[in-house]
Amino acid sequence: MIKHFLSLNSLSTDQIHGLIQRAQFFSRHQKQPDKIHHLLQHKLFANVFYEPSTRTRCSFEVAAKRLGAEIINFVPENSSVKKGETVYDTLKSLESLGVDGIILRHSDDNIFESLSGLNTCPMINAGAGKHEHPSQGLLDLLTLTQEFPKLAGLKIAICGDIKHSRVAGSLMIAAEKFGMEIHLCGPESLIPNINNTFIKCSELDNVLPEVDAVMMLRIQLERHEGLELDQKTYFEQFGLSNHRVSLMKEKSIILHPGPFNRGIEIADEVVEHPRSRIFKQMTNGVFARMAILEWVLSKGNEND
Amino acid sequence: MIKHFLSLNSLSTDQIHGLIQRAQFFSRHQKQPDKIHHLLQHKLFANVFYEPSTRTRCSFEVAAKRLGAEIINFVPENSSVKKGETVYDTLKSLESLGVDGIILRHSDDNIFESLSGLNTCPMINAGAGKHEHPSQGLLDLLTLTQEFPKLAGLKIAICGDIKHSRVAGSLMIAAEKFGMEIHLCGPESLIPNINNTFIKCSELDNVLPEVDAVMMLRIQLERHEGLELDQKTYFEQFGLSNHRVSLMKEKSIILHPGPFNRGIEIADEVVEHPRSRIFKQMTNGVFARMAILEWVLSKGNEND
Amino acid sequence: MIKHFLSLNSLSTDQIHGLIQRAQFFSRHQKQPDKIHHLLQHKLFANVFYEPSTRTRCSFEVAAKRLGAEIINFVPENSSVKKGETVYDTLKSLESLGVDGIILRHSDDNIFESLSGLNTCPMINAGAGKHEHPSQGLLDLLTLTQEFPKLAGLKIAICGDIKHSRVAGSLMIAAEKFGMEIHLCGPESLIPNINNTFIKCSELDNVLPEVDAVMMLRIQLERHEGLELDQKTYFEQFGLSNHRVSLMKEKSIILHPGPFNRGIEIADEVVEHPRSRIFKQMTNGVFARMAILEWVLSKGNEND
Repeated sequence: MIKHFLSLNSLSTDQIHGLIQRAQFFSRHQKQPDKIHHLLQHKLFANVFYEPSTRTRCSFEVAAKRLGAEIINFVPENSSVKKGETVYDTLKSLESLGVDGIILRHSDDNIFESLSGLNTCPMINAGAGKHEHPSQGLLDLLTLTQEFPKLAGLKIAICGDIKHSRVAGSLMIAAEKFGMEIHLCGPESLIPNINNTFIKCSELDNVLPEVDAVMMLRIQLERHEGLELDQKTYFEQFGLSNHRVSLMKEKSIILHPGPFNRGIEIADEVVEHPRSRIFKQMTNGVFARMAILEWVLSKGNEND
Repeated sequence: MIKHFLSLNSLSTDQIHGLIQRAQFFSRHQKQPDKIHHLLQHKLFANVFYEPSTRTRCSFEVAAKRLGAEIINFVPENSSVKKGETVYDTLKSLESLGVDGIILRHSDDNIFESLSGLNTCPMINAGAGKHEHPSQGLLDLLTLTQEFPKLAGLKIAICGDIKHSRVAGSLMIAAEKFGMEIHLCGPESLIPNINNTFIKCSELDNVLPEVDAVMMLRIQLERHEGLELDQKTYFEQFGLSNHRVSLMKEKSIILHPGPFNRGIEIADEVVEHPRSRIFKQMTNGVFARMAILEWVLSKGNEND
Repeated sequence: MIKHFLSLNSLSTDQIHGLIQRAQFFSRHQKQPDKIHHLLQHKLFANVFYEPSTRTRCSFEVAAKRLGAEIINFVPENSSVKKGETVYDTLKSLESLGVDGIILRHSDDNIFESLSGLNTCPMINAGAGKHEHPSQGLLDLLTLTQEFPKLAGLKIAICGDIKHSRVAGSLMIAAEKFGMEIHLCGPESLIPNINNTFIKCSELDNVLPEVDAVMMLRIQLERHEGLELDQKTYFEQFGLSNHRVSLMKEKSIILHPGPFNRGIEIADEVVEHPRSRIFKQMTNGVFARMAILEWVLSKGNEND
């Protein structure tokens, strides 16, 4: 039975809790690498990124190495992709080389459906299309778990280009699973029209005093050409300024998946504000991904 | 005495049999990586690819890692090549860093002659010019060995752009060594004019019912600009369609070095046909290359 | 206390001697990798090169692997840099991933000043701007130490584009520390106007008979556009020809940091002349960098 990690949606809350606890374990043992390093020894992953990425690719690479696994980086630009090979054939080839898992990022929303013929090794979604980035979702849940006694009932604002954000997509899935309340903020044209028990569209300045966390999103200029966005106006309306941070309640935190645009969606001086957990999220990303890599290779069925 | 792996031609049939048997050993032990992982521990290879490649580069990388060796990937585009350094000087520098072997792909037919001054570490040919791709030749022999009781007397059709194919070049060398009969098929302008005891030019449809294996080649559009090739006409005349597969005799197999163009030289549904060993070839490629990496670093003279 | 390796200037001569001796130790044990391989086990470095490099990047990578450490290669072109991320934010992210050291090359002279906020892991200067390349300086000192009984009093000519050479910059710093006499030679427009106890501007042909070593520099065409330099004239005036080598005194040696332009600043046949230590420098580079990587992670204060 192959265990894939494609979406938070297909995992039970128990499974997600299990992954979070395992990530916490890795966090506690970060200063004792020799306690961890044998866990995936002799295992081999392939990092296959069809879109540029610093954080996520390196994060998976560090996670694999911390567990004693090897990882090969496949860079599509330098390869047979130039010769017109399909994603399926490229991945089937990597699978045939005997890798133990494939970590894939791709711009296509439905890339994993097109790869259902690949079934001899686990696939790990490192960001697909505009909807899903489940390892980011897991690290966000880990970060919230470290700050608050329980996830249920937490109020979170997400602000920015939500329509094109797979980070927001995965957090909204998590919110429904764990009973968190999500407030979507940002320019009207960039916010999906959702209104249900868990997810509402709100004004940023209205919800800031109430939320436990605000997740700022990068304006992904490369994804919506043609949109006229004056950066200064954007910052005034939706940017997380020092003034807006002062509206936030005690113990509330600031999140951002990175990379961020200083001075556009977040003020320069807010990035490393005491409330900010932005770089903590990156640290947590390694622990979350260690838990994911270990899980997909663990024995047992998909419900473990 | 440095042992290079540059051409099947310079190896005896005994040496090649020895490499095939060692590759079979690695194949049998693929589920026990700890039995293998110490064999090249603390050894360090450099992967130096002046031409794009998915399969071969990753295959050598996986092979090295399975043996416990380290490998560094040298990507000429990001490097001193931009500053005008010659291949000799780049490789001499890598050699000076203390690597234990250099795995080289280059477009120049005579690249290894130009590197004869490099003689402190083994060189491994990962595809040079239009003529030689000996690790592919070895994996093809391994794949045939797994299917048939002996190599001598096997009939193999090679179909496609044979003039520009180093895969075909290495298979023809192997055929002469092992007494296999090769039939060259494809557009007249892409077939070399060879006719000897082992190698003949033939019509694909005439030989298909007789051959034990058919090796389809990718039409390497990047290598013969100016040739007018209508893809549909090509498929009709030379493509491996389902109908053509039905002409093949019992136990015969389909080979392709990859990457393939579905619908041009091979029908979409033939790629994973029960007769196809295309992805098996890729799996075998790792075992063949493990045998090669171990051999070049083994003590003894070039005849071992 | 974090130990950075940013400049030879901030190290005492005792510290530099300590690093040289440790590099010598690694040189003596190069055939016993298992004696060395445990020293930095489970440590993880990031190689971050904003400028192309073969030698230095691979040299650090080999050095890390020889010590049993892991290394991840961060290639800015394939990453968030495309999304406009600053160097500080990229490195802060890598630091957050838990790497144990960051090896950085960048074109900006003052890049490390801009990164002073990064203080949880050691930074290693792999070449910054036009002034500093301290690991090259260390390997040059190591190479001189292997040839001569002591550094003090050695006379060294540096010839070429000294103004734009960080290699020259680091060697001049070392000269002042160790009491070596440096003679700057080359086209007047490419030589800084320095004249003190240790550093003088001289005519190449005048000093060649007197120096213990001549360090030839590559003409870095990419760094001074607009300069009209006829290659043949340059070679005649400043190139290290066989004739010029014949002027050099007994036991004197030829150095070059590479990559070199054969026939421009150095004659083709001089590159591997018996006096040349050019490829020896590359071999020494690995040992010097092993010493550096070990030092930055060693306990104790910056004076150790």
